[in-house]
Amino acid sequence: MNARRHARVALVGLGPIGVEVGKALAEREGLTLLGAADPAPDKAGRPLSELLGGPFRGVAIRASAADLYRETAASRGRADVVLLCTGSRLHTVLPQIEEAIGAGFHVVSTCEELAYPELRHLPMARRVDALARERGVAVLGTGVNPGLVMDRLVLAAASACVRVDSVRVTRVVDAAKRRGPLRAKVGAGMTPQEFAAGVAAKRLGHVGLSESAALIALGLGLPIDEITETIEPVIAGTETEGVAAGRVLGLHQLALVQAGDEVRVTLDLTMAVGAASPADSIEIDGDPPVRLKVTGGFHGDRATVGTVVNAVPFVVAAPPGLKNVVTVPLFGLQPLP
Amino acid sequence: MNARRHARVALVGLGPIGVEVGKALAEREGLTLLGAADPAPDKAGRPLSELLGGPFRGVAIRASAADLYRETAASRGRADVVLLCTGSRLHTVLPQIEEAIGAGFHVVSTCEELAYPELRHLPMARRVDALARERGVAVLGTGVNPGLVMDRLVLAAASACVRVDSVRVTRVVDAAKRRGPLRAKVGAGMTPQEFAAGVAAKRLGHVGLSESAALIALGLGLPIDEITETIEPVIAGTETEGVAAGRVLGLHQLALVQAGDEVRVTLDLTMAVGAASPADSIEIDGDPPVRLKVTGGFHGDRATVGTVVNAVPFVVAAPPGLKNVVTVPLFGLQPLP
Repeated sequence: MNARRHARVALVGLGPIGVEVGKALAEREGLTLLGAADPAPDKAGRPLSELLGGPFRGVAIRASAADLYRETAASRGRADVVLLCTGSRLHTVLPQIEEAIGAGFHVVSTCEELAYPELRHLPMARRVDALARERGVAVLGTGVNPGLVMDRLVLAAASACVRVDSVRVTRVVDAAKRRGPLRAKVGAGMTPQEFAAGVAAKRLGHVGLSESAALIALGLGLPIDEITETIEPVIAGTETEGVAAGRVLGLHQLALVQAGDEVRVTLDLTMAVGAASPADSIEIDGDPPVRLKVTGGFHGDRATVGTVVNAVPFVVAAPPGLKNVVTVPLFGLQPLP
Repeated sequence: MNARRHARVALVGLGPIGVEVGKALAEREGLTLLGAADPAPDKAGRPLSELLGGPFRGVAIRASAADLYRETAASRGRADVVLLCTGSRLHTVLPQIEEAIGAGFHVVSTCEELAYPELRHLPMARRVDALARERGVAVLGTGVNPGLVMDRLVLAAASACVRVDSVRVTRVVDAAKRRGPLRAKVGAGMTPQEFAAGVAAKRLGHVGLSESAALIALGLGLPIDEITETIEPVIAGTETEGVAAGRVLGLHQLALVQAGDEVRVTLDLTMAVGAASPADSIEIDGDPPVRLKVTGGFHGDRATVGTVVNAVPFVVAAPPGLKNVVTVPLFGLQPLP
């Protein structure tokens, strides 16, 4: 396999991340955008250049991925990838994954539960793996979180350790600096009651924290049968960036992996308007201990775009099947030649 | 392939790192030490337990790797690995690699030039790759540096970037806190003249900096034809940890990757007695920028042992051939099941 051969990409889902992914694809040597699809009435049928800028004059946004796949079928080859930027939950994204595999595409998706679907949806994961192998394509869920900060980067650092006793990863994101969907997902501006209802209905909260915890646990040789997750609101003490005192600034979410009585992995995520000292830090207690910090933290949106676009040539070069961010050697922007 | 199957390890080279690797192997579930070899008169024939402690009573250190391979041949299988902790330069280690491959072993080695042997020794690299494929085994050079701090970890972080303009990695090691061979390799206590002679004769200096630079460049899609490396002494201004004023405390070594007129990758390594603020830092200018710091730095010896031992099950699971630390998904202590 020549890891550097040209890959062509069909982009499905033109939300804020999808649009930025499209722009990044257009700039990247070695990748060509085949076209894009989004069923939203304000997008389908419009020229793609209106969303992505210059290089796509004359290309219309398709109303459905099926249209896009059908129209490009004649010229397709083994190095074609669908980038799915459509949803966080596997049960909604699964039919789209199956459709893309069926059309002979590799799949890279921002679907958070696809980061390690075996955790919550083992039958679906097995089905995707079987279909992908049958069609000779690879399927990967990635992004910055899950996908890098709280799993892949942690295991890259832990690979220096003779022994790991425990791992704590802390990510603090200032939601004031992020786009609208992130503010909505963390409940900014809600009353505590609305927040509690949103969490109960799974409308609020970061999806993928337990998936990251599972990846770390497996990479350290720990069992994953005791992963617990909690979400609490961060309440404004005083008016903060337009959020009134007593209202919700965001969330504090924890995932823990226990082995027996001991907490071995702690993932500690705060995403809130006005959160102080945004940063990512990885603390590994073991031999040797490791203390790693990313000042300011990886930028959520830009790093999601980066991880997704960079994954494309690696997925093209991977053996068929369901992959994840620690079974594919996702180092850098492209595989070595 | 079952990534978690049991692997058995033959240890060749019982210098300070080899001994610590042996102790770590003995503690690691899923790995068994087959035996060890070292031709040094003060080691060959002695009970291995004298060097590694309790669990090896009755096992003698073999005088040659060939003896070790022959004696264990009958019971060997596909999951057997030789850990070579013998030298930094490929031309001295190559015959040992070939011998191990010939005996049907996978190879993991601390040989620094094996981190990316294509850079300086393309014919040797091709030969190792061909032999390894022929015998169905994988060969990997790894360690903390080269192998992690200044290459693999950098590319793990860079995988978040939509665009990378330049990379600077700085590693500062206080040689006063390290074992004798490290102090010797950085020239601690020498006169500046002795240091210059040692550098000219390639007795001094960190081996592998250009190999790390090449791995980064390739992972970023940059050409590697303009890598330059320099080594300068760090001179004691006042008496420092037993080194007189005017004598050498250690070295400051730089590797640069240029593309046209621009320096795109800078690897900046200081290893000196009494070096202030030991740390590893990775600065990526791009979209998004990344600022990552490992406080205190990865511990050179312990992290070398960790990277080497952790690599074993990944190498067993890898496709045959010559590998490197960014073509094998070296995340954590073991591959996912």
